[in-house]
Amino acid sequence: MTPGQTLARGVCRHLRGYNFVTIEEFVPTAGLRVDVMALGPKGEVWVIECKSSRADYHSDNKWQGYLEWCDRYFWAVDEAFPTDLLPPDSGLILADGYGAEIMRMPSEAKLAAARRKKLTQMFARHAALRLQALRDPGVGVNGIS
Amino acid sequence: MTPGQTLARGVCRHLRGYNFVTIEEFVPTAGLRVDVMALGPKGEVWVIECKSSRADYHSDNKWQGYLEWCDRYFWAVDEAFPTDLLPPDSGLILADGYGAEIMRMPSEAKLAAARRKKLTQMFARHAALRLQALRDPGVGVNGIS
Repeated sequence: MTPGQTLARGVCRHLRGYNFVTIEEFVPTAGLRVDVMALGPKGEVWVIECKSSRADYHSDNKWQGYLEWCDRYFWAVDEAFPTDLLPPDSGLILADGYGAEIMRMPSEAKLAAARRKKLTQMFARHAALRLQALRDPGVGVNGIS
Repeated sequence: MTPGQTLARGVCRHLRGYNFVTIEEFVPTAGLRVDVMALGPKGEVWVIECKSSRADYHSDNKWQGYLEWCDRYFWAVDEAFPTDLLPPDSGLILADGYGAEIMRMPSEAKLAAARRKKLTQMFARHAALRLQALRDPGVGVNGIS
């Protein structure tokens, strides 16, 4: 696992405690790939980007593009990360490979109904495809392998 | 795998060819458990019940309850199954453990929008929870284990 994937694991575990389910490396639209996409018990959509270092953060010039694909947006970092770098109004999660803690809850910018519907369908399809690939190795993610 | 699960595997593989994703043993409402729930590229919801024998079919007194949870309803059976037993207007899939074929496409009874939305969310949550349990054995299906 990369350092970012390790943070993602802890984030996903923690979000279960909020009754959110999660998928990793989700592509909401061509050219964007979010580290963690979370779906809440009432259909809430959260995006969490995991940054393992200052360099990792500075190399991401796409993050503002993620904002329009979620109700709330968070950064997840480890305790060594210089959090002063991060925009003060975005969400902040402190994570390691075993768990996490939400340090700052961002304000909510609700998705339009049509986009939420589309995203929920895409989330369902992404999760089901990957699940099928694991439970039946005879099927690839893109169909019969 | 039970005979029913073997049929389900073939059904799920075949439905990938229609660009449908699938989950198994889905509970749309208390007391009902469907063998295969499939989600299509336009959000279509199909339910497929897998019957391995005449006895298996006759012991199911709940199937009419499944109709209100999908746009189309199918039986999946193997080639030894006496298909004359089945209602003539329901869908029919001939399956084995490696693949399947849709023999009869049932008419569509479209879900109301609110139920489709709810079912799609439940599908997404079911798939993501089981996927997380597989990719991170430290998390159980019901949360941190």
